[in-house]
Amino acid sequence: MTTSIPMNAGDGVYSYSKNSHLQKEMIDGAKEMVIDAIIRKLNIKIILSSSNTLRIAELGCSVGPNTFSAMQYIVEALKDKYLLYQDQVINFTNNIPEFQIFFNDHVTNDFNILFRSLPFDRSYYAYGIPGSFYGRLFPSRSIHFVHSSSGINWLSKIPKELVDEKSPAWNKGLIHYVGASNVEVVNAYFAQFEKDMEVFFNVRAEEIVQGGMMVLITAFSGYIRLMRFFGSSLMDLVNEGKLDESLVDSFNLPLYYPSPQEMTKVVEKNGLFSIERMELINIKSNLVDEADAKTLMTSLRSSIEGVIISHFGSKIAEEACARTILKSEEISEWMKVNNEKPSILFVALKRK
Amino acid sequence: MTTSIPMNAGDGVYSYSKNSHLQKEMIDGAKEMVIDAIIRKLNIKIILSSSNTLRIAELGCSVGPNTFSAMQYIVEALKDKYLLYQDQVINFTNNIPEFQIFFNDHVTNDFNILFRSLPFDRSYYAYGIPGSFYGRLFPSRSIHFVHSSSGINWLSKIPKELVDEKSPAWNKGLIHYVGASNVEVVNAYFAQFEKDMEVFFNVRAEEIVQGGMMVLITAFSGYIRLMRFFGSSLMDLVNEGKLDESLVDSFNLPLYYPSPQEMTKVVEKNGLFSIERMELINIKSNLVDEADAKTLMTSLRSSIEGVIISHFGSKIAEEACARTILKSEEISEWMKVNNEKPSILFVALKRK
Repeated sequence: MTTSIPMNAGDGVYSYSKNSHLQKEMIDGAKEMVIDAIIRKLNIKIILSSSNTLRIAELGCSVGPNTFSAMQYIVEALKDKYLLYQDQVINFTNNIPEFQIFFNDHVTNDFNILFRSLPFDRSYYAYGIPGSFYGRLFPSRSIHFVHSSSGINWLSKIPKELVDEKSPAWNKGLIHYVGASNVEVVNAYFAQFEKDMEVFFNVRAEEIVQGGMMVLITAFSGYIRLMRFFGSSLMDLVNEGKLDESLVDSFNLPLYYPSPQEMTKVVEKNGLFSIERMELINIKSNLVDEADAKTLMTSLRSSIEGVIISHFGSKIAEEACARTILKSEEISEWMKVNNEKPSILFVALKRK
Repeated sequence: MTTSIPMNAGDGVYSYSKNSHLQKEMIDGAKEMVIDAIIRKLNIKIILSSSNTLRIAELGCSVGPNTFSAMQYIVEALKDKYLLYQDQVINFTNNIPEFQIFFNDHVTNDFNILFRSLPFDRSYYAYGIPGSFYGRLFPSRSIHFVHSSSGINWLSKIPKELVDEKSPAWNKGLIHYVGASNVEVVNAYFAQFEKDMEVFFNVRAEEIVQGGMMVLITAFSGYIRLMRFFGSSLMDLVNEGKLDESLVDSFNLPLYYPSPQEMTKVVEKNGLFSIERMELINIKSNLVDEADAKTLMTSLRSSIEGVIISHFGSKIAEEACARTILKSEEISEWMKVNNEKPSILFVALKRK
């Protein structure tokens, strides 16, 4: 089974476009680091040697608006970098580069909403490219910069041993590896992440020009724990006899949140990219109150409702979401305690 | 007023995807000429000198499936041309090129349907690019081949004198220049076409590499006359007191069908493209019976219903379509008589 899960479409109450607060905090939180990576690490001379067009791939764009703010500051940083370079070099005759941005997400993503939300005053040519980023999306050596926020957390599929009751990695009573005491479960998740990243790095390495960069941003703590609260709401329904336990046993969220050590391991094993910067950042979320806990659950819901509904049906999904929101006091307490801890992992890579 | 009219979305009874028979005949009818233009006229050496990726722009793609068959034979022809060239040249080291196809239409086009209908076995990278082709869509000198079928017939706007009762070009009682006895009406339409094409050629000339080609295919007879039958249905409603005549007077279809002489004039006036081939073709439609007349009206409806509904409302649009179908015997007679006449205009241009 290959998973292909769009964020919630449209612009309704539970749509991704209206509820992606945490994703916004992540993009805003990583902003200075992305700009810094472009200004300090990108070799604009190599990049512009083959073309006066800079091509940027945004992987896992969803429907906006977060993707547009990230693209805006990336284009500005690339322009600044170009101007800095121009100041340093005599007889530099290139014109200011043109920008192409390729917005990628699964074919089930709502590209109509994305296209209709494109900023009018954008200073780039905008394209949509449907398909999994675990496959080729671009011709060889055509991309200069790749950005993906909350993208590579999505595994290409769920390892089958997690739902096999004869396997030591059977994830009984849980919907994720977070909170699992069975180390085989965690190992099975990481093994899938390793496989996916090997494929991901190989296809990107073909597409990205030598010296081209890739910035990957993934959640590290806050978001992850929310999965536990949601999972426990499902188990509450099981305990009340409203949901068959086998349905929980056969479900696992296809999400993995790597540690810096794990990320280093997969990059080095692949060998085609150098690590220019890797850092855990604490974005000190503004979302810590009880009301915010509700906001966060709505945010989580807009991201994962698709997979939940397709497995449990909309009635159970609705009930489990409602019950998790009832835990907002508990969630808020947990958020306050954890707000000082690192919350996102930032990685800047360069194509060797 | 700038017009932006998508074909009917979705896959319902009156959707473009299920009713684009005439557009299919046009694309099939032009197939051999497009292939011939690529094989005989394209200088693949110049084209491949700057890049091993061939980039194709499909302007006015709508939602498929016609666009996919055209792109399929264009990619095949480009591959054949490449292999022919490879056979002739010793020490030709290029690998077989990669293909990028950019599917363009208005931002209101249903790109979700387009993306979900992309052929699984395609041998090209597929992208969507929303926006009017009367503006820039691509970076400078980045496109090698442009294809547009039934695209440039759509004017960017309706000249205002057509709806100004004080103007000699006021188009009273008609919805198009076809059938208008007032030559000022025809002149106003052509003047707009001239202006649009000047803009169109200027923007394309910036985007297309030197030696790059552009194939434009436009309807020439059959489709055009159908507009008259539809217009007369609207006037029937006026005469029966069911529709206010001022609503007909204030409406004009933003469609122009150039003659070879007019096409030559706009290309030469612009001066940035050479005419490699221009021809009127009779595609001898298989759609001539009374049943076919109904099919054709449904086809016409899927194309123009958007503009009709937005001006007249859906009730009048429905009634006018139904009445035009009642004229299918008359339409069929006319189609039989005209089936031997040229029906599409084919133009192959090369960027100087």
